Amino acid sequence: MSQPRGPLSQLRRGHEELVLGLLRKHGPLSRGELGKLCRLSRTTLYDILAELVSSGAVVTATHQDDVPRGRGRPAETLTLNPDAGQAIGIDFARRAVHVAAVNLAHEIVGAASEPHDADLPWQQRVDLAERLIGSLSEGGLRLGALSAIGAGVVGPVGGPEAREDSPTAAQDGAGETAPHPAQVLLRERFGVPVLLDNNARLSALGEAIWGAAAGGQDVLYLRLSHGVGGGLVVAGSLHRGAYGLSGEFGHITVDPQGAPCSCGGSGCLETVASIRAVLDAYRAAGGRADDVPELVKAIKEGDATALGLLADVGASIGGVLAALCNAIGPSVIVIGGELAETGAALIDPIERTLRARVMPISRHRVSLRRATLGEAAGALGGIALVLHESPLLSRYPAGPDLAQETPRNENETSPMNDTRQS
Amino acid sequence: MSQPRGPLSQLRRGHEELVLGLLRKHGPLSRGELGKLCRLSRTTLYDILAELVSSGAVVTATHQDDVPRGRGRPAETLTLNPDAGQAIGIDFARRAVHVAAVNLAHEIVGAASEPHDADLPWQQRVDLAERLIGSLSEGGLRLGALSAIGAGVVGPVGGPEAREDSPTAAQDGAGETAPHPAQVLLRERFGVPVLLDNNARLSALGEAIWGAAAGGQDVLYLRLSHGVGGGLVVAGSLHRGAYGLSGEFGHITVDPQGAPCSCGGSGCLETVASIRAVLDAYRAAGGRADDVPELVKAIKEGDATALGLLADVGASIGGVLAALCNAIGPSVIVIGGELAETGAALIDPIERTLRARVMPISRHRVSLRRATLGEAAGALGGIALVLHESPLLSRYPAGPDLAQETPRNENETSPMNDTRQS
Repeated sequence: MSQPRGPLSQLRRGHEELVLGLLRKHGPLSRGELGKLCRLSRTTLYDILAELVSSGAVVTATHQDDVPRGRGRPAETLTLNPDAGQAIGIDFARRAVHVAAVNLAHEIVGAASEPHDADLPWQQRVDLAERLIGSLSEGGLRLGALSAIGAGVVGPVGGPEAREDSPTAAQDGAGETAPHPAQVLLRERFGVPVLLDNNARLSALGEAIWGAAAGGQDVLYLRLSHGVGGGLVVAGSLHRGAYGLSGEFGHITVDPQGAPCSCGGSGCLETVASIRAVLDAYRAAGGRADDVPELVKAIKEGDATALGLLADVGASIGGVLAALCNAIGPSVIVIGGELAETGAALIDPIERTLRARVMPISRHRVSLRRATLGEAAGALGGIALVLHESPLLSRYPAGPDLAQETPRNENETSPMNDTRQS
Repeated sequence: MSQPRGPLSQLRRGHEELVLGLLRKHGPLSRGELGKLCRLSRTTLYDILAELVSSGAVVTATHQDDVPRGRGRPAETLTLNPDAGQAIGIDFARRAVHVAAVNLAHEIVGAASEPHDADLPWQQRVDLAERLIGSLSEGGLRLGALSAIGAGVVGPVGGPEAREDSPTAAQDGAGETAPHPAQVLLRERFGVPVLLDNNARLSALGEAIWGAAAGGQDVLYLRLSHGVGGGLVVAGSLHRGAYGLSGEFGHITVDPQGAPCSCGGSGCLETVASIRAVLDAYRAAGGRADDVPELVKAIKEGDATALGLLADVGASIGGVLAALCNAIGPSVIVIGGELAETGAALIDPIERTLRARVMPISRHRVSLRRATLGEAAGALGGIALVLHESPLLSRYPAGPDLAQETPRNENETSPMNDTRQS
C-alpha cells in the first residue's frame, strides 16, 4: 500500500524513521526514554507514536521482568511490532556453527547449533548455517521479513568492506582486504546484506544486549576458551578499533619472560589462561584432567592443586582487567567461555585482584559477572549488529543504490523498509 | 531575515542541517567525503551544497598542507564559513588557565594562557578565563557568534549533567553529582551552554583533531606531567566510559610491590612516570635536577644515569601502551606532557617495548608520536567538544527549551542557529 508522497508526509516520515530506528536499536523503551533519545518535542513525539501504534508498526508492552534495565522499570514500554521483521545472526566458530533469530521487539525467536570438524570448508559451513536457519522457521521465523544477516567469524575482521553498507564505513581508511568467504557465500545464498565481525566481539555485544550485561552501555567481555579474547561495547555500540584490531585481551603480556604464544609474542594472557594452558599447567602439577568438565569435577572435590592453579590464573586475569578498567571505564565486566564454568574457584581470585588494582574510585562501580548466553552469544551479537548498523532503516539511505535492494512489496506492517528519499 | 516555513522548505532544511552538522564536526571535507557521510543522493547533495555556497554559509577551500588527513589530499574541500561562528575552549589546569578560540572552518583564531597559584578560587579562575578570552578578541574573536563553551578541569568528570544538553546524556545513568563550579560560573558569565570534561581527555580530542594525530579516528593520548593520565578517541569521538572514569592510564599497576600512589593503590604507572617520580628517582641515583628542563639538559650532556632511568621508565610506559593497544586498537598513540620533552631518551624505549609486546599483527599499524599542541591541547579539546556535541546545531533540538536559548537575531550567515522544528 503506497503512502502519500508529499513533502509534509516526507518530513513526518523523517520523524517516524527516527523513532522507529531508536526502537530498533534499543528495543523496548518508555515514552520518557524515547523522548530523551529522539529530542523531538513532546507533542510531536506523542503524535507520531499515536500514529505508529494505530498503524500497528509499534506496539505497547509491559516490560519483561527478566531483562534488567539501568534505571528502574517503567510501567509501559513501546517496541517495534515483533511481526514487522526478523534478524538472523550466525556465529562461525572454530568447530561449530551457531544461529539465532530475533524479532524487531528484541525477542529471541530461536537458536540452534551444530558442531563440525575444524577444517570444514566454507561452502559447507554456510550449507550448515542455512540448514540450521531453516530449522528455526518452525519456531516462527519468516525469511520474507529478513533485512540483513549479521555473522561472526574467528580472527581479526577489519576495514569497511567487512561492514558492507555500514554508515560508518565512510569514516574508515580505504579497505584493502578481500571480502571474507562467509560474507560472499551468505550474500549469494540469502540475497541480503551481510554484516561481519569477529565472533568474540559480537559475543560482547550479545551479552551487552541480551545477556549478563543487558542494558549496559560500557561493557568489557572476556572469553576464556581455546583462545582468550573478547570485545568492548562503548557507549552502547560495538567498538572495533583502527584496522578492526581490538578486544585482543588474550595477547596482553602478563609475564615478559613467559611461554611463547601463538601470536608470536611471549607470556601473553592466553599462555596462562586458555583451556589448554590451564589443563597443561594442572597436569604438570600432578593433576589429572583432559577437559574442562574434568577440571570442574576436581574443583568440586576440593582438589588443592586445581584451586591453587586457578587462584594464580585468576590473579593474572584480574590484573589485566584492572588495567583495562582504569583505561576504558566499563560498568560491567562479563567473563565467558568454557573456563568460566570453573565458577568461584576462578571468578573469586579474578575479582580479588581486580578490586585490589583498579583505581579505588572505580572499585565499587564496576560489576563482574559470568556470561549468561553461552554459545549463542556470538550469533545474538550478529543480530545486534544488524539492529544497530544495517542501513535499511537509516534515515538517509543512498537513494538509487539502496532503492534497488529495497523490497517493494512489503506490506504496511513493515513501513521501515520504505524509506526512499530524494 | 526569515526563511520560508513551508514543509518543503523544512525537509530541505533537514538536509541542509545534516550537511552543516557534518562540516561542523569534521572540518574541511571534499564533496566525495561529504557524500559518503551524509548518504544523500548525489543530486540532492550537490543541489544543497550549491545553495549553501551561494548563501555564504559554506565556502570552498583548498585544503591546507599542514593538516594531514587519512586518505590523500582532495583538490577542493568545503567548510563552514569561518565567519559564521566561533567556539571557545578553556582548560582549567592545576596551576594555569588556557583558552583558545576556533572558527567554524576549524581554524584556530587564537590562544592564550596565564599561570596561577594552585589554590586560586574558582571565581577568580573564571575571571582569569574571561580576561584571557577578552584578549583574543583583538585577534578577531567575536563573542556574539559564540554558541557554547567547552571546558576542561582536573579530575574525574562524569554523569550526564557534566554534558548539560548533550544528546548522549539520555543514555547514561541518573546523575547524582552537583554541577561543577566552573560550569555554573561560566554559564552565568557568558549565558551559553557549557560542556565540561576532564582536561586530559580533552587534550586527547584536541590532538586527534588539530595535533599530532590530526584526522585519526582511534587515538590514545598519554600525558606525562605532574600526574599521568590521558584519554581515548574512539571512532572520532571522545570516549568517556561509565561514570566518566576512563583514560586513567597513570593508575594502571606496573609493579604490584611498588610505591604507594596518591590514588590509594600501589605501584601505579604514575609512581614511576610522573615528573616528580622521575626526578626523585634521578636524584636518588645521584643525579642533580630540580625540574624537567634540568633533566633534559643532563640528557643532552649524555648523562648515563638519566638515560638509564628513562630507559626503565620508558619500558614501563611501553608495556602499558602495548596492553592498551591490544585491547583498544588505536591507530595513533600520542605522548604529551612535560616529560615528553626528554625526547628520544624516553620515546625510543617506550617504542621498543611497545613494538615488542603489542600483537605482531598490529606492530606496524600503530604509530607513536609526540604531542604537538603543547599546553593549548586541553582548551582546543574543549572546542572540539562544542563542535561535536553542542546541541544548538543538532537536527532535533528539544523544541521549546532550546528555542528560548536560541538567539533570534542571527543574520543569515549563521543559519545553523535556526533549527527549530515542531
